[in-house]
Amino acid sequence: MARVVVSVMPKPEILDPQGKAVLGALPRLGFSGVSEVRQGKRFELEVAGEVTPAVLAEVEKMAETLLSNPVIENYVVSVEA
Amino acid sequence: MARVVVSVMPKPEILDPQGKAVLGALPRLGFSGVSEVRQGKRFELEVAGEVTPAVLAEVEKMAETLLSNPVIENYVVSVEA
Repeated sequence: MARVVVSVMPKPEILDPQGKAVLGALPRLGFSGVSEVRQGKRFELEVAGEVTPAVLAEVEKMAETLLSNPVIENYVVSVEA
Repeated sequence: MARVVVSVMPKPEILDPQGKAVLGALPRLGFSGVSEVRQGKRFELEVAGEVTPAVLAEVEKMAETLLSNPVIENYVVSVEA
């Protein structure tokens, strides 16, 4: 059993209202020093057996077709130790 | 300028309907080999200057009070290289 993580973030040129809302709330809560916040999604997938290149390629395809919208989002696939 | 990442995931004992929906969609799209999916949030925070222990402590507090709901979610703070 291995865990593969897919991180999905809005592309830099895409407006991120959720991130902006968090950024606006921080000073009201007394926090300072943060200049930008982006909010995205994190998927943790449990896959049976070892994480082979074939498994990673399959997860890449899942990320592209189901987990992200490639028009407005970037994704990164990584294996968790 | 440094980037600090806050990953927020539903606690293992908490039902995750979004993750279940993804898990159910995978076989319908022709994907196999995934036994569990959990969906959470990923925040990328740009902080000015270096990431000192004090900055990390501040981000931990943000994660606990604003970015996550500690009753149903766990969070992890990490620094991106």
